[in-house]
Amino acid sequence: MCQVASVVCLPKLSRVAVCGGTHGNELSGVYLVRELVKVDKKAVEKKAEEEEPASVLMVLSNPRAIQQGQRYVDTDLNRCFTHAILNGPMLDTAPYEMIRSRELNGMLGPKGSPEAVDLVCDLHNTTANMGLCLIAYSDCDWICLHIFRHLQVSQTSIPLRYIHFDVSNKESYSLDSVGKHGFAMEIGAQPHSVVRSNIYTAMKLGVQHMLDWVRSFNSGRIFEGGFVDVFTMVKHIDYPRDSETQNITAAIHPQLQDRDFCLLHPGDPLFQTFSGETLTYKGHQPLYPFFINECAYYEKGIALSLARRKRVMVPAIRVQTEQEQRANEPRYTSEEEE
Amino acid sequence: MCQVASVVCLPKLSRVAVCGGTHGNELSGVYLVRELVKVDKKAVEKKAEEEEPASVLMVLSNPRAIQQGQRYVDTDLNRCFTHAILNGPMLDTAPYEMIRSRELNGMLGPKGSPEAVDLVCDLHNTTANMGLCLIAYSDCDWICLHIFRHLQVSQTSIPLRYIHFDVSNKESYSLDSVGKHGFAMEIGAQPHSVVRSNIYTAMKLGVQHMLDWVRSFNSGRIFEGGFVDVFTMVKHIDYPRDSETQNITAAIHPQLQDRDFCLLHPGDPLFQTFSGETLTYKGHQPLYPFFINECAYYEKGIALSLARRKRVMVPAIRVQTEQEQRANEPRYTSEEEE
Repeated sequence: MCQVASVVCLPKLSRVAVCGGTHGNELSGVYLVRELVKVDKKAVEKKAEEEEPASVLMVLSNPRAIQQGQRYVDTDLNRCFTHAILNGPMLDTAPYEMIRSRELNGMLGPKGSPEAVDLVCDLHNTTANMGLCLIAYSDCDWICLHIFRHLQVSQTSIPLRYIHFDVSNKESYSLDSVGKHGFAMEIGAQPHSVVRSNIYTAMKLGVQHMLDWVRSFNSGRIFEGGFVDVFTMVKHIDYPRDSETQNITAAIHPQLQDRDFCLLHPGDPLFQTFSGETLTYKGHQPLYPFFINECAYYEKGIALSLARRKRVMVPAIRVQTEQEQRANEPRYTSEEEE
Repeated sequence: MCQVASVVCLPKLSRVAVCGGTHGNELSGVYLVRELVKVDKKAVEKKAEEEEPASVLMVLSNPRAIQQGQRYVDTDLNRCFTHAILNGPMLDTAPYEMIRSRELNGMLGPKGSPEAVDLVCDLHNTTANMGLCLIAYSDCDWICLHIFRHLQVSQTSIPLRYIHFDVSNKESYSLDSVGKHGFAMEIGAQPHSVVRSNIYTAMKLGVQHMLDWVRSFNSGRIFEGGFVDVFTMVKHIDYPRDSETQNITAAIHPQLQDRDFCLLHPGDPLFQTFSGETLTYKGHQPLYPFFINECAYYEKGIALSLARRKRVMVPAIRVQTEQEQRANEPRYTSEEEE
């Protein structure tokens, strides 16, 4: 990274991966990747391979889970990209997703290496009414934040937010952490194992706008700086549960349901028990709820997550010239050298 | 059945079954039955068993599927109550649900016999925006139709419809067909494996109103006649599919999505392909769409169902006196006598 006249210069994004079906029952991404592959094949057949400003790799991440119409076969694939899982010993009896995460790491990574793809966009759906969110591990990845800003101005038919999970690269667990830059594109509300045309179309536009931005960036355009609201995850809240059976005893309160990113104040209704009682939010500070009533998180003990909002100043950026790129070639240290 | 001064007199409804979890991932019914069992236990402990006007049996129909959070384990339980499946030979290797359907038939039936419970209310959820529907095999079951009329006046916060599947008793395949009267109470939109408080509450009220009506009927009240709009299923429409892979190639059109029971005219948008093309409804007559984009019907090849609406005149009814009941005792013929 170099900085010239307050414009941050960043390496070219030569290789981009768009992944769907990391969770096999989140169907927008599955059908979108299949559609993009089809369009891509036709384009390749038609043009005598014009030079693209970036190569785009389309991946169906968890083919077995897609085949079965399930989130996963043995374990959640999108928790299998930690340094420990990717590099630890592998038993013959390892869950399918642990084997598959290594395959994907070989294809798109290795995570943390110079060979890793430049950008991973991993497509997800949620049953929560979250609109379109980019979810990333960094609140200062200017590539991800500029892509987000581009989507904000290009895609006004759906609410957009940027969510930050404050986890180190080593501990980061999701597929998008394999790229040099990466994020999950999470869109809802859509029931799992269902595809809703409006959600599919929002995702399709999101990916198109993202790729447009990458091409534009690679071609040398300067992108002005500006502010972005970032929602940093603070904590999760579980459902009230029966101490004996561990069954949930309440649902999200109807006044909270579908109100993702609407500030939740202490004392606000949080749950409604199955006998009809209202339980309120006991926190000490107002926070922003998201992933409210996400289907797949019942088993993870998460009824909703809470975030703090902050405003991040994103600098102007442009792609490095070839000369700058050679001068700034990043030096990766291996484990032994650390 | 007897008819006195244009009031139809029908046998008492002494035994009612309320079933949840026939599909293990339709959670409103699962949590409602658990809640009713809890309330019932407390009530029994408190009162020294006052005589109830009807005994109410609460059933979790598919405990293994509930445990696994799946619609079913081996096959759809709610297709396993045909005469053929309940009475045919049973192999040791039979799917779990075929064994379970016999257990339930023993508990609530036998189907078609004088020992069967008087009324089965089977609780279901759908991802389609159907509001609250009663689904029955008859358009002249005055008990079901009067219960529906009672819900219509008692429960105004959700749209209510009566759906009729024109299938003979022998061919009828769902759990509710085991009772002398029966219907599915289908409520949506709710994603499967999720519970939404508003949908849960609508179901709870629906069951309470249904049981109130049964008590009121059994106590001798006369219920006035009147008209009911009945939606009779005419046909199903499948998604467009790739001839090679059988994968779907389009989603429900955004202009049709969530518009269950809004008349669909020839030429109206039906699907939007994943490449963005609109496909229209090619039928020759306007019909009422329902079960639009129901999650569990992708595998059954049903994108939506279409119904014809008709107006049914429901007569006034009251319960038979004990004397009438003895005089009108139904005579069931066994197989051998047929």
